[in-house]
Amino acid sequence: MIYSIATVCLSGTFRERIEAIAKAGFRGIEIFESDLITHNGSVKEIRRMLDDHGLEVVTYQPFRDFEGLPAPYRQKAFDRAERKFDLMEALGTDLLMVCSNTSPHALGGIQRAADDFHELGERASKRNMRIAYEALAWGKYVYDYRDSWEIVRRANHDAVGLCLDTFHIFSRQTELDTMLNIPGDRIFLVQVADAPSLSMDHLSWSRHYRCFPGQGDLPIDHFVANMHATGYDGPFSLEIFNDQFRAGSAEKTARDGYRSLVFANHAAEKTPDEDATSIPVVSPPRDIEFIEFALNDTEKKSLTKLLSQLGFSHAATHKKKHVELWRQGNINLVMNMEPDSFAQNFHQHHGVSVCAVGMTCDNVKDMVERAKKLEFTPVYGNPNTDTHGIPAIYGPGESLLYMVDGSEKPAHWEREFQWHSDVEAQAFLNKVDHIALSMSYEEMLHSVLVFRSMFSMRTMPTVNVTDPGGLIRSQALQTPDRGVSFTLNSSQASRTVSSRILDQYAGTGVNHIALSTKDIFATAAFMDAQQTTTLPATVNYYDDLAARFDLSDETIAKLKRFNILYDEDENGSFYQLYTTLFAGRFCFEIVQRNGYTGFGAANSQMRLAMQAGEMAK
Amino acid sequence: MIYSIATVCLSGTFRERIEAIAKAGFRGIEIFESDLITHNGSVKEIRRMLDDHGLEVVTYQPFRDFEGLPAPYRQKAFDRAERKFDLMEALGTDLLMVCSNTSPHALGGIQRAADDFHELGERASKRNMRIAYEALAWGKYVYDYRDSWEIVRRANHDAVGLCLDTFHIFSRQTELDTMLNIPGDRIFLVQVADAPSLSMDHLSWSRHYRCFPGQGDLPIDHFVANMHATGYDGPFSLEIFNDQFRAGSAEKTARDGYRSLVFANHAAEKTPDEDATSIPVVSPPRDIEFIEFALNDTEKKSLTKLLSQLGFSHAATHKKKHVELWRQGNINLVMNMEPDSFAQNFHQHHGVSVCAVGMTCDNVKDMVERAKKLEFTPVYGNPNTDTHGIPAIYGPGESLLYMVDGSEKPAHWEREFQWHSDVEAQAFLNKVDHIALSMSYEEMLHSVLVFRSMFSMRTMPTVNVTDPGGLIRSQALQTPDRGVSFTLNSSQASRTVSSRILDQYAGTGVNHIALSTKDIFATAAFMDAQQTTTLPATVNYYDDLAARFDLSDETIAKLKRFNILYDEDENGSFYQLYTTLFAGRFCFEIVQRNGYTGFGAANSQMRLAMQAGEMAK
Repeated sequence: MIYSIATVCLSGTFRERIEAIAKAGFRGIEIFESDLITHNGSVKEIRRMLDDHGLEVVTYQPFRDFEGLPAPYRQKAFDRAERKFDLMEALGTDLLMVCSNTSPHALGGIQRAADDFHELGERASKRNMRIAYEALAWGKYVYDYRDSWEIVRRANHDAVGLCLDTFHIFSRQTELDTMLNIPGDRIFLVQVADAPSLSMDHLSWSRHYRCFPGQGDLPIDHFVANMHATGYDGPFSLEIFNDQFRAGSAEKTARDGYRSLVFANHAAEKTPDEDATSIPVVSPPRDIEFIEFALNDTEKKSLTKLLSQLGFSHAATHKKKHVELWRQGNINLVMNMEPDSFAQNFHQHHGVSVCAVGMTCDNVKDMVERAKKLEFTPVYGNPNTDTHGIPAIYGPGESLLYMVDGSEKPAHWEREFQWHSDVEAQAFLNKVDHIALSMSYEEMLHSVLVFRSMFSMRTMPTVNVTDPGGLIRSQALQTPDRGVSFTLNSSQASRTVSSRILDQYAGTGVNHIALSTKDIFATAAFMDAQQTTTLPATVNYYDDLAARFDLSDETIAKLKRFNILYDEDENGSFYQLYTTLFAGRFCFEIVQRNGYTGFGAANSQMRLAMQAGEMAK
Repeated sequence: MIYSIATVCLSGTFRERIEAIAKAGFRGIEIFESDLITHNGSVKEIRRMLDDHGLEVVTYQPFRDFEGLPAPYRQKAFDRAERKFDLMEALGTDLLMVCSNTSPHALGGIQRAADDFHELGERASKRNMRIAYEALAWGKYVYDYRDSWEIVRRANHDAVGLCLDTFHIFSRQTELDTMLNIPGDRIFLVQVADAPSLSMDHLSWSRHYRCFPGQGDLPIDHFVANMHATGYDGPFSLEIFNDQFRAGSAEKTARDGYRSLVFANHAAEKTPDEDATSIPVVSPPRDIEFIEFALNDTEKKSLTKLLSQLGFSHAATHKKKHVELWRQGNINLVMNMEPDSFAQNFHQHHGVSVCAVGMTCDNVKDMVERAKKLEFTPVYGNPNTDTHGIPAIYGPGESLLYMVDGSEKPAHWEREFQWHSDVEAQAFLNKVDHIALSMSYEEMLHSVLVFRSMFSMRTMPTVNVTDPGGLIRSQALQTPDRGVSFTLNSSQASRTVSSRILDQYAGTGVNHIALSTKDIFATAAFMDAQQTTTLPATVNYYDDLAARFDLSDETIAKLKRFNILYDEDENGSFYQLYTTLFAGRFCFEIVQRNGYTGFGAANSQMRLAMQAGEMAK
């Protein structure tokens, strides 16, 4: 199977895109009409450039408005095809992708279209060319792969085959079973694209919102399993029109694209070629083992004050490095002030920040193998300064995601520390509930792919939250048992809390760290006694709570007393309490879940209004 | 008629929004549930703040999921309503806006809903409150104003009336004739929103893409004419959910909102109240009379060299100021180097740029009156340095749009110049075809309103153009006889040609000035003889032209020889030739139209690829 990508997926000049595609590991490329038109060089020169980069042109596309035309348009379409064959010859490709007719001149009729394709097949085979026919979701008569397959079948010509595109199939909600009846060798091209669940016209959805497999909501797995079942082993190609990709870094986008193909090809349950290209199946991480902060000694002083107010204790000190461990319940917070470390390098760029997150994993060796197959580069820290040897990959904002071996107790990294036996954990707080990050939308797509392909997380429906400065898009991801959760927040408006935090960090960074408690009121009372400053809620908020939920006046009064927010879903109740922002960038959220499975989206507008007020001070 | 706006239209804190709303001239305001929740102050304090700003709360909204509920939900809904009445009492408003039920618990049936509203009317009237019922486009059973009207009619209660919202009506493409049967005093609230023509689900369209009347594609005029015909004279209110407005300047958005209401209220053919609030109807401008550049002496030297190469002559010199006039055919280019002028102040902020455009108008006095009614502030230049006395309003990027009296020949401003009788105009070029501007999307919405409300321009469908750095959205506007045309370009991607030009100017600026010729080949030959550098097109572009159009090899060769681009539409052919960028920001485009009515969108991708290449050098 040859992994391929259409040039339109990426930004930049034709040359820049070719370089990015080759560098990312692709061997195939789809050339678009517009590539040639905008490139200032001959087709011959383009072919040489592709050869130099080891790229095979899997198809030239699209050839539009061909089938079902009456005279005189029919003859003109064949003339156009011959011109395209000339071009393809010069370009060195033998496959022309024809998409279903959208012209007002087109006539319907399966047999009429089949006859046209038979004749095109005749012409193509004379020139050693082939034709792949695709049903566009917005084709005038043909917009269902079952019809395009029937046309290909009736065209009955060796040079005429099918092109399947996941987007066109899923956007029309066409069933996939018919695929299983198509012989693999009658499929000439497979294009794979994901997309978020949006209800808008097929064309706009397709032209602006497609994304790489694993970044959207379409059931790509099911398609790929059926594709393998047909025996198809031709090009597996990305054709993604996405406004962010078109504006982003070609190199980074191409790398994610390649990764998404490997992931998509192996995410299906049955993968026939269990050969060198197969990748290990791994379990999702169990929970967050530790969160590591990069900070200097002054910032450490302020942060540890806040941690003490939350009930954390200084549990251990690293035997060799300027690193401290603060602990409560199962929450480990590492503070890294060690000079010349990854943390301090990170600190230099981003200031006080979370530079790494450790996740408890099973079978770390397989995870490292999987990471490599997915074109991540596992790192083990600086061998001169880092002794723990825990493998990590780069996650959001180039912070590290450590894969900690969960079978060792105490963990290997814990043995590097000198433990303070006199410390008694308070244990108001017992676990990291989730970590919320602020990032650009481009980085959000990248991060979704990281979390899904490596850590088996699932996406929850995207939520739009209103901030006084504009809208924030929020996407939650979590492991199937909800052991590890991240929420990713992004805003195109520059004055939202999310965007301002991005400015503070000069890039992606942690927005808040949510820690769970079993008793929010006891925790709040403790925090209050410690004089912890918490984010206030408005009087009107509590009046509204009283109208929305069956809460006693006494409960409302208690919530109000401690600035605790409240929500319910069909599974249960939820309590939230935020500290004020630390260094203008992140805060701690204390949560209590009684069955509730969301992240308090209903309270976000209130919280953001309060945080925006805090930032404006 | 009281002009009103919903707080959700604007960005910022509740207080900031109230200030912006009052400042823009509104007397009415709609208060949203979320305003209260996020505002850290009591309802009493809010009421005082509104009073201080002279704002009347025309409605509190929305009250959701009320009608058609079975027990026990029905009783709870009435309980909720009573709580809202309490709140409204404190807030000082008597109108509760109820939108049609979207809850899965809701039951259908016109009579059932009517009974519920009758009961709600009873409760409301006991407290001196009233109810306005609105059919949401995505209501479960009620999504058509004809049904909500039938429910209100059958509810048969003085305290229950109708709320009409243009968005919900147009998005369902409901006919407007039924409106004419509704007595004006049975309508309690009119909400007006425009939107671009998009096909997506009603909810997403409504929540993100609404815009002010005059900024979108909905036939607001028709609605307003019918509204006046009913005799309605209650609140005329804006309820606009728009991502850009939510992120932009509250003050600027509020001002545009107020302007859009005045425009919408008077754009309808029949406006009954021809009183103090009526605004003069004016003719569209005839053509571009002049374009004024702000530049320094060095830049002037380079620009006049380029103008000479295009066949322009130095026709006149200002009698008192450091200003020159260059002319060809009916094109007047003014170069303003006068110290302490508006031009030089503009130059200080934006560098070499177009600081003003003069349009030939009929009845300038009425236009000035109209401008004032639309809350533009007419300016006449600095009385110490400007002698021409031509009125202007601020247009895109705070450049000036002059309204030149077309009845005087020579124009008043021409008499300020000393004419060089020895100059013979070359007249290859005869007229300004259009002016293309780069701006932010927010500014684009603002500019559309300026051009439509003041200069009777019409919008053409928005086009998306692919740039190597991302997508560019392009919106053309022109007067009905096409005498004056502008194209507005905006891009959310930072590396597009459009965005880079924006950077160069530090704001909105001219992208290109298109000048029309009757003989593109003669003009091109002249320019070539003058060694004018033109933007190249690719070899592949001309190969593709040959495949797309019936052009002789000779014509193709001639086009190629001079870098001329070509396009056709159903009305005729179009030729385009671009100079390279001047000062990295604008260029001249030479066009020949043989019936063609577009702006060469088919060639934009090629042109942008070439300009991006030029910028990268």
